[in-house]
Amino acid sequence: MAIGSIPSDPVIPAAALLEHWQGHRRLTRRVIEAFPEEQLFSFSVGSMRPFGALAMEMITMAEPMVRGIVTGEWDQMITREARPKKEVLRLWDESTEKINTLWARIPPERFQQTATAFGQYPGLVYELLLYVIDNEVHHRGQGYVYLRALGIEPPPFYERQ
Amino acid sequence: MAIGSIPSDPVIPAAALLEHWQGHRRLTRRVIEAFPEEQLFSFSVGSMRPFGALAMEMITMAEPMVRGIVTGEWDQMITREARPKKEVLRLWDESTEKINTLWARIPPERFQQTATAFGQYPGLVYELLLYVIDNEVHHRGQGYVYLRALGIEPPPFYERQ
Repeated sequence: MAIGSIPSDPVIPAAALLEHWQGHRRLTRRVIEAFPEEQLFSFSVGSMRPFGALAMEMITMAEPMVRGIVTGEWDQMITREARPKKEVLRLWDESTEKINTLWARIPPERFQQTATAFGQYPGLVYELLLYVIDNEVHHRGQGYVYLRALGIEPPPFYERQ
Repeated sequence: MAIGSIPSDPVIPAAALLEHWQGHRRLTRRVIEAFPEEQLFSFSVGSMRPFGALAMEMITMAEPMVRGIVTGEWDQMITREARPKKEVLRLWDESTEKINTLWARIPPERFQQTATAFGQYPGLVYELLLYVIDNEVHHRGQGYVYLRALGIEPPPFYERQ
């Protein structure tokens, strides 16, 4: 059965995709909170980046991606350097609000149009958004291993409220 | 801006969601392949499950979820126990084909209807599918850490072909 024969009707509502993402973001926020301050930007496994650096990557991708899609202006003004956990959480919460506001300005037809994110990543708008969400889930999965290696129980994966 | 004011127009085509998932599945297959046979069901970090067990979890969730959505019959006939890597890959490839065939039988309107997966997880069909995809990305992120901890370079995250 070729994939080409699958109906191409859109099946996921724009509002649901946002809510799905924000559910993931609530969980990721809890993972950031679960890290001890002194390990957030220092601890890792297998020479990978510490979770604080991954969280800052997410922050520099998430709201800037949605802003770029809405405005055509692509920039990532926040640096990824280490900072106190409460500052990471503050930036996280700020992004959450901005994403909600910007998302309401994406016309439904825009999701299936092309864009070149940050001047270098071409794709359909929904693909670019899914990439940012998947990147968050991927790196958060790393964070779960770091927490376990630190002897800390991570928040439940299925809890998104 | 309340999320309730976001347009509810569906924006991701059914065929694209399948292709998105199969791209992830190609990457996950490469992660399974990257594990040395003798570590697949034994190595882990922080007392978590080894990657072979996570891959078997994915296999028992993926095709059975799509089959349940299409037929209303929910069962997970494959056990999650340890087996040779080539057998995991064979089951993986078998699931890939079955998912493509079954997906073509999901009527577009079905995605926004409710289902109770495996008799215990209620949700909209697209939510249940996203959950299975996210669970795969999450656990594969763990697998990346295991590979790095073993001194093995994981396949690039952005490569989905």
